[in-house]
Amino acid sequence: MKDTKIYYKKIKFNNPVLFVGLPGIGSIGTLVAEHLKKELKARKFATLYSPHFPYQIIMLKDGAFRLVSNRFYYYKDKRGKNDIIILLGDAQPLTPEGQYDVNEKIVEFFKQLGGKKVYTIGGYSLGGQYVRTPKVFGVGTDREMLDYLKKQGVVLANATGMSVLGSAGMIVAFSKKHKIPAACIMGETGLLDVDANSAKVVLQVINKMLGMDINLDNIDKLKGETEKMLKELEDATRGMMNPAQASGLGPEENPTYIR
Amino acid sequence: MKDTKIYYKKIKFNNPVLFVGLPGIGSIGTLVAEHLKKELKARKFATLYSPHFPYQIIMLKDGAFRLVSNRFYYYKDKRGKNDIIILLGDAQPLTPEGQYDVNEKIVEFFKQLGGKKVYTIGGYSLGGQYVRTPKVFGVGTDREMLDYLKKQGVVLANATGMSVLGSAGMIVAFSKKHKIPAACIMGETGLLDVDANSAKVVLQVINKMLGMDINLDNIDKLKGETEKMLKELEDATRGMMNPAQASGLGPEENPTYIR
Amino acid sequence: MKDTKIYYKKIKFNNPVLFVGLPGIGSIGTLVAEHLKKELKARKFATLYSPHFPYQIIMLKDGAFRLVSNRFYYYKDKRGKNDIIILLGDAQPLTPEGQYDVNEKIVEFFKQLGGKKVYTIGGYSLGGQYVRTPKVFGVGTDREMLDYLKKQGVVLANATGMSVLGSAGMIVAFSKKHKIPAACIMGETGLLDVDANSAKVVLQVINKMLGMDINLDNIDKLKGETEKMLKELEDATRGMMNPAQASGLGPEENPTYIR
Amino acid sequence: MKDTKIYYKKIKFNNPVLFVGLPGIGSIGTLVAEHLKKELKARKFATLYSPHFPYQIIMLKDGAFRLVSNRFYYYKDKRGKNDIIILLGDAQPLTPEGQYDVNEKIVEFFKQLGGKKVYTIGGYSLGGQYVRTPKVFGVGTDREMLDYLKKQGVVLANATGMSVLGSAGMIVAFSKKHKIPAACIMGETGLLDVDANSAKVVLQVINKMLGMDINLDNIDKLKGETEKMLKELEDATRGMMNPAQASGLGPEENPTYIR
Repeated sequence: MKDTKIYYKKIKFNNPVLFVGLPGIGSIGTLVAEHLKKELKARKFATLYSPHFPYQIIMLKDGAFRLVSNRFYYYKDKRGKNDIIILLGDAQPLTPEGQYDVNEKIVEFFKQLGGKKVYTIGGYSLGGQYVRTPKVFGVGTDREMLDYLKKQGVVLANATGMSVLGSAGMIVAFSKKHKIPAACIMGETGLLDVDANSAKVVLQVINKMLGMDINLDNIDKLKGETEKMLKELEDATRGMMNPAQASGLGPEENPTYIR
Repeated sequence: MKDTKIYYKKIKFNNPVLFVGLPGIGSIGTLVAEHLKKELKARKFATLYSPHFPYQIIMLKDGAFRLVSNRFYYYKDKRGKNDIIILLGDAQPLTPEGQYDVNEKIVEFFKQLGGKKVYTIGGYSLGGQYVRTPKVFGVGTDREMLDYLKKQGVVLANATGMSVLGSAGMIVAFSKKHKIPAACIMGETGLLDVDANSAKVVLQVINKMLGMDINLDNIDKLKGETEKMLKELEDATRGMMNPAQASGLGPEENPTYIR
Repeated sequence: MKDTKIYYKKIKFNNPVLFVGLPGIGSIGTLVAEHLKKELKARKFATLYSPHFPYQIIMLKDGAFRLVSNRFYYYKDKRGKNDIIILLGDAQPLTPEGQYDVNEKIVEFFKQLGGKKVYTIGGYSLGGQYVRTPKVFGVGTDREMLDYLKKQGVVLANATGMSVLGSAGMIVAFSKKHKIPAACIMGETGLLDVDANSAKVVLQVINKMLGMDINLDNIDKLKGETEKMLKELEDATRGMMNPAQASGLGPEENPTYIR
Repeated sequence: MKDTKIYYKKIKFNNPVLFVGLPGIGSIGTLVAEHLKKELKARKFATLYSPHFPYQIIMLKDGAFRLVSNRFYYYKDKRGKNDIIILLGDAQPLTPEGQYDVNEKIVEFFKQLGGKKVYTIGGYSLGGQYVRTPKVFGVGTDREMLDYLKKQGVVLANATGMSVLGSAGMIVAFSKKHKIPAACIMGETGLLDVDANSAKVVLQVINKMLGMDINLDNIDKLKGETEKMLKELEDATRGMMNPAQASGLGPEENPTYIR
């Protein structure tokens, strides 16, 4: 296997919009895409394999497995406006050359399906602290898209020189090249590998964008569990810090893991 | 040399079954494949070279050497049912692109020989402890294969999200793509780089599968030597731990290297 | 995207000279190229993208972004002698193969524009100390170029066996292959990631070469700020060192971060 | 530049024999090849460039430079028997794929010149100690070559499973593939990055092989300097060890850096 390849069923789409949620900072892309897939009961219609992915199979239940892949799911819009396509997967390409190859192939495939708009979901990390009330940041391909993002409550990123790594950034760049309006929507995050709180605020923006009312109970539950765990960790840590501080060995400031 | 290439003698096979044992966790693949080769007096008929392998020659006896390779051996089934092909070698490809390339080439080559079934042998590590009574875990390409594995005493892996790295997993995935029933059979292992005990239980499963009675004395001997060494190590280590524990600096639990 | 590609507007140039300033030691290339671009009000006419670059987008102001790239700017010489082309960018290729590919493509593109001379700008680091009065070192493709460099006050590098890494060196090598006279001009540097002082002396040489009088106020200001900061750091550090030296644990010599 | 390429002058050779000495363990290959080149006053006739080499230029005297390369030199045998070709260079390829590509290209080029025999020079390290009376080990492509090596005093390597990395091994393997008798000749070494003593014994073997009397004064001088330095180091180190041993913290045995 020498080339990236997408296997797919032919389906006629109505002005489809693509949401991309691949593994990355805070797992926000993955959380959002998996949530959308489940709540919309979206159905798989395409699978992307690539020699630039990790060389692994993923074990499933009862002896089943799958080769590492990215997978496309679709939801037919009952209102006849915009069908929704969701891209999620096990991994991103491992090499620079793989990233350039796979991410452009994703955009070309979506274009061939008649794609109208692309949103990639990512995390935006400013430090090692849990973010209790995360903002949603965005970058976009054109004026119209940026104005639209602002109306949805997205804060336009203003971090000249900082970069967005991997698919979340590259797919937006290749969308621009192929003249598809696109944006990268990033939940503010920190500390956590899996940040349900940040994913939730991104989902709220998406709900607003789509004029839909996707249920958020599951992500809310995950958020609750995470914060309970963090609270316990914070309590335990604070206890441990005090004696050290008393002995003059502690940090100068109280540690705050939650803000 | 730019491409992976297989050099081979033309041989007519009778519904051949492939066993793959390449370097990996606990060296279980290597131990099993080398044992099968030796006990079946299997003969080499093909050699695979690849620019994705380590760039080394391996020194042999008396000034001889070989370029790093994977090698195919065969055994003609006297009962006329299934000839056996064994793949073993010095290394696996070093890059993702190499893994995808070489592992699919192996499957395509076996298909071209009229291949009927593929079993890859691997290790399944759950921790850093020696496993005295290892289970044999399996994943497979289809229902029929999984049912068959179960009948041989293989435990169907149920580790959703965990992965099998390298050839042991990839060759099964590419077999599925090329519509050859396949399974990855994994001996439970831990702690050891060369786990003869785990290799033995895998060989017992293979004996049952093949309805053969391949002699296990050699692997048993290796197992005995390993366990003697571990016993000595355990005794020595236990002695060393006691004073530390007495002084309050030791671990809270007795260390157990054998379970 | 599988290949390095340059997108450009067709412009007729008059014996153009290329200055290359890409990220590297002491950021001297970047500082010089950005300064030339700004002071000459040079205009962008070409952009190079490559799958060997980092897989990132760079965030700009107000939600805008760009894909990592190298960019060509031009300045039409009012005296009708040599138009100036400036190459700057976000990154250099990440792999050896990428460096060989991209750097030769840059030279071939410049040749196709009728290019007459190439100067790459780099840093020349001899240690971890700030260099107060940096020399400008040079290597060049031919006798005539080397004699010319000497006349501009450039010290011909005499460091047999030392190497110049990346674009600064490779572009000069590929210029030689394509028979374009070229030189690598290196500001002596040390300690700093962004060395405005060294960039300034390189700019003075370039001013002399071009017979121009490019304003150096901005780079001078940056130099002043850097040296003020270093002075403060030096004062603070010297204070910290004394007790250690008094206790016999300090270094044998006074630390000097400025020479 | 996408491909490895050899630029050369056409020269008619008389049954040429190739000696390869590229950077590696103990720099023995480099020392031997540079010595042969100098003493035989061999002349450059071919240069190999590759995108798999480090992306550097090497600075030479007075502002000159060269792109990283491997270079072929020749010596016309006055006795009309075997012309000698020497390959040396700045580096070996950085990637597995590069090693397979470049090393086979070297063999193919030599074959096209009518090449009759190939000797690669390497180091054979068994530990971290300076080897005062190094052996010369060898591996070879065929029985006849191995018998010949033995007659020259080369010890046939008997290290089943150990490997020879890089060009020293790969060029011998590709010679075998292209049916050119070849051997890898390795000087026993340890501790040193540049081991003139080991290079000297290899040169003595080569002198015997060629029936020549190549002067060894230069390598002898380098050997003398190295051993003087080691002696001083040993004296100094021994002094430092004693107090530690007295305090019960030292190693159990006397350290010996020379054997």
